[in-house]
Amino acid sequence: MTDLKLLEHLETYLTEHRKQRFENVLSQRTKHFTVATEDVYQLHNTSAVIRSCDVFGIQEVNIVEEQNSKRIDREIAMGSQKWVDLNRYKTVHDCINDLKEKGYQIVATTPHTNDTLLHEFDVTKKSCFFFGRETEGLSKEVLDAADCYLKIPMVGFTESLNISVSAAIILQHVTTKLKQTDIDWQLTEIEKQEKRFDWIKKTIKSYDDIVNRYYNNK
Amino acid sequence: MTDLKLLEHLETYLTEHRKQRFENVLSQRTKHFTVATEDVYQLHNTSAVIRSCDVFGIQEVNIVEEQNSKRIDREIAMGSQKWVDLNRYKTVHDCINDLKEKGYQIVATTPHTNDTLLHEFDVTKKSCFFFGRETEGLSKEVLDAADCYLKIPMVGFTESLNISVSAAIILQHVTTKLKQTDIDWQLTEIEKQEKRFDWIKKTIKSYDDIVNRYYNNK
Repeated sequence: MTDLKLLEHLETYLTEHRKQRFENVLSQRTKHFTVATEDVYQLHNTSAVIRSCDVFGIQEVNIVEEQNSKRIDREIAMGSQKWVDLNRYKTVHDCINDLKEKGYQIVATTPHTNDTLLHEFDVTKKSCFFFGRETEGLSKEVLDAADCYLKIPMVGFTESLNISVSAAIILQHVTTKLKQTDIDWQLTEIEKQEKRFDWIKKTIKSYDDIVNRYYNNK
Repeated sequence: MTDLKLLEHLETYLTEHRKQRFENVLSQRTKHFTVATEDVYQLHNTSAVIRSCDVFGIQEVNIVEEQNSKRIDREIAMGSQKWVDLNRYKTVHDCINDLKEKGYQIVATTPHTNDTLLHEFDVTKKSCFFFGRETEGLSKEVLDAADCYLKIPMVGFTESLNISVSAAIILQHVTTKLKQTDIDWQLTEIEKQEKRFDWIKKTIKSYDDIVNRYYNNK
């Protein structure tokens, strides 16, 4: 599937600095954890979640857009979505099925359910963290399907944090803790190759020309 | 200074639920850590930092407003500033002096200085976490005065988090860790009494009438 000779050739178009950057980022990417957002209305929240995924090395984000599909597009076109993979779903049902097939447990992040506290969360399990709507929270469907309810302990008068802040706290915590375990959390070699191609394609403007010339000269 | 009989009388005007809430929140409040913001322009960032302080039990927030004094007022009038104490300073110099006199080490939170990583930070020291301007970061004065540079490890292409997200991650982490130590981090009994008065004053509309009647009937 992947043409390693072509990849090598393409990489000669990158600066040494950029190439090294790709490798550094790739070495810290994981699919052990993933994130799902369910009909998040406030557009800056969606892009903030995507940015946090990039910052903390989460490669895949799942976006359920039962009600909001049109509005989200514009926003995510602006952010760091270039470097993470967005899986988009029309229904929660499809999203959850897909995640379960891939072996993820469903983790509902809810501010009011008194279940697992963040610092007690078992990071060894493949997990998808679900974040819900700003006011209504997660849908009944997600809550019913959840294997685990995760809570950030809060001790003040204010009893909630916004989605982008919750996501950042959770992702920072679980990825830091994951890297202290001996779990095999990194991307596979094949997944890394795919991302190298993908990122080069998004970086080099004349990608198509270079690939065409490469095959014509072969 | 504090009239405990008056406090007892005032508390009869609170519902049992509210009284219990005050005690729960008070029992988790700390001055072992505090936060300082330096000329933060984006108003929603200041109030998000204040909200995070409330959520994670930080009782005091220090606000330096060398350049921005007028604009911040409006915003902080809306948030959870009712429950935390705001110390306002016209100069960084005054703020740092005051904090040092109170025994705090100055912790500069900077995304680009490669020093202490968050999960390695020593929570046993009394610390003030400084957050700077959105684009310029912290001033040279804060960086020069800092005892410690704290960094949230980031492993993606995006190399920064916004102030409100950074503050929330740091405060969540250090307060959780602090509570796992045997450090004496809680408010003193006198500090708690002061907050009980203060919070009752902010809760009961007819506070002044009640106090006047109390003293007249004595």
